[in-house]
Amino acid sequence: MSDVAITTETPVKELFIKMVVAAWDASTGQVNKLFDELSDAQFAAETAPGRNTGIYLLGHLTAVTDRMMPLLGFGERLYPQLDPVFLTSPDKSGLEMPPLAELKKNWKEANKRLSESIAKTTPDEWLSKHTAVSAEDFAKEPQRNKLNVLINRTNHQSTHYGQLIYLKAKANQ
Amino acid sequence: MSDVAITTETPVKELFIKMVVAAWDASTGQVNKLFDELSDAQFAAETAPGRNTGIYLLGHLTAVTDRMMPLLGFGERLYPQLDPVFLTSPDKSGLEMPPLAELKKNWKEANKRLSESIAKTTPDEWLSKHTAVSAEDFAKEPQRNKLNVLINRTNHQSTHYGQLIYLKAKANQ
Repeated sequence: MSDVAITTETPVKELFIKMVVAAWDASTGQVNKLFDELSDAQFAAETAPGRNTGIYLLGHLTAVTDRMMPLLGFGERLYPQLDPVFLTSPDKSGLEMPPLAELKKNWKEANKRLSESIAKTTPDEWLSKHTAVSAEDFAKEPQRNKLNVLINRTNHQSTHYGQLIYLKAKANQ
Repeated sequence: MSDVAITTETPVKELFIKMVVAAWDASTGQVNKLFDELSDAQFAAETAPGRNTGIYLLGHLTAVTDRMMPLLGFGERLYPQLDPVFLTSPDKSGLEMPPLAELKKNWKEANKRLSESIAKTTPDEWLSKHTAVSAEDFAKEPQRNKLNVLINRTNHQSTHYGQLIYLKAKANQ
């Protein structure tokens, strides 16, 4: 779907989906670029005093992205072992984290996999219910669809991006 | 439009707009709640060492929200005087900031005004071009519409919300 050219004849459904997916891609692109630029020391640092470290947020975003696969009916989890460390526990909980190099690979693989599924999803599938809402509730609340999950996760990722950029050295002024 | 009940008969256009507007409202709601909770000292503090203060981000988000009025063809700017301080200059530029109490009022008024305009906007208006893209470019890129601006500004606001929450004291653990 992402290769379909947008023209003035593009039906509205396709246009909306293109807009939402583009926002997700832009967010993931900027987070990925930042992750590629950070040193190991920067990853280990707190984003602000007493706050989440870079490596914690890397694991956290990877877990959230990986969880979208079953939530959107795209496939199974690849890394469920991340959840106790990066979703249900805060940073510095004492739980052992995987090595940074492994987390970086997981991040890239989770996003590659999600993007492949996104590209194959039809507009009607985007408007269908996600797997965490019952058919009964969805009949009354049709906005609780898969596309809405993508909108929500894009904003979640943006929220953490605002924190992650504090790991980079400030530009010279 | 925000009072229209969503049902399974809701046309797709209305459903998409409801989803995007709901995400904007949720973002603004959580930022507003945080602003209502912060003390004057917390507003004056940096979100992280050497980074933007709470009051700078309050002015910044107010300016961006106020700018959406002419960008989306909803009306004139209320606070163009905010731009040199909060948009085109970084924090601690030496430029004089308005008092915090005044900025808080501006924030509330800018959002009230934008919300009123959002409620009156039809789906076809949301799909029409915003005022910063030419008709010629829009014909080739119909995704450069008003709704896309709202998607973009929601993620922008989320990015800064991730930074603003660092002004709050951490919850007891």
